[in-house]
Amino acid sequence: MPNKELDQKQVADVEVLLRTVSVIVKKRGREMLADTDITPPQFNALLTLINAGTLTIGELGERMFLACSTATDLVDRMERNGLVMRERDTTDRRVIRLKVLDKGHQIIDEVIATRRKYLSTVLSKISTEEVESMITALSHLVELMTQEEVS
Amino acid sequence: MPNKELDQKQVADVEVLLRTVSVIVKKRGREMLADTDITPPQFNALLTLINAGTLTIGELGERMFLACSTATDLVDRMERNGLVMRERDTTDRRVIRLKVLDKGHQIIDEVIATRRKYLSTVLSKISTEEVESMITALSHLVELMTQEEVS
Repeated sequence: MPNKELDQKQVADVEVLLRTVSVIVKKRGREMLADTDITPPQFNALLTLINAGTLTIGELGERMFLACSTATDLVDRMERNGLVMRERDTTDRRVIRLKVLDKGHQIIDEVIATRRKYLSTVLSKISTEEVESMITALSHLVELMTQEEVS
Repeated sequence: MPNKELDQKQVADVEVLLRTVSVIVKKRGREMLADTDITPPQFNALLTLINAGTLTIGELGERMFLACSTATDLVDRMERNGLVMRERDTTDRRVIRLKVLDKGHQIIDEVIATRRKYLSTVLSKISTEEVESMITALSHLVELMTQEEVS
């Protein structure tokens, strides 16, 4: 049953709630990184590289909205930190691609594990039924947002 | 009724869903910025400044995890763009604070208005009852996350 007379107060509520959840998740993520030797930009670059499969420095910079020299500096620091390596493309030897090394994958896995542990603590305070209805609501929201994006 | 035997599958689901929502919201936000003349780092700096009230360049750089020279470059570009101005602190004239100008406030307001319009389209496809239960679930999640942060 579509809702044509959508209450603008509800829309404003959902907007603020989603923004607040994003801010808390981001803030907690940064606190978790404090225990590692990588910075938030390095972490974002790792996530971007892992999601994309493989990228050149130029492509990574574009996706992170960084100036060319800033992207190169970031990759230099990540390479010294043992998180990524520069690798020649197998089909076009002139192209340099970035490869995430084991240490990089490990850090991402650890941060996700810590996030889950944190969410366990949060969610253990409510009933299974409420967790279920939260999952249903969020899944539906993601589904609607993804459809909206394609159309 | 607290839920001591929390299902780990549920926790993993919530983690992935929250991450997906954040990614979509962020991606949409960047698409919205494409129509303005400010970049995502400038937008993040504006939001940080507005939430904080007022900051020095050093404080802004700290909150955004930027090197000192990068923060100064960013503020220079924002000042040229008419988004912020440097202002001497009224109590300590040696301290320079950043003030968000009207154009900066307008851009943030517009982006939030566009987000609401987008959410209206998304939420108009489901019933008022489901929007209500989504708001209840998200509010409870925010409440639990905020408590967890303080304790």
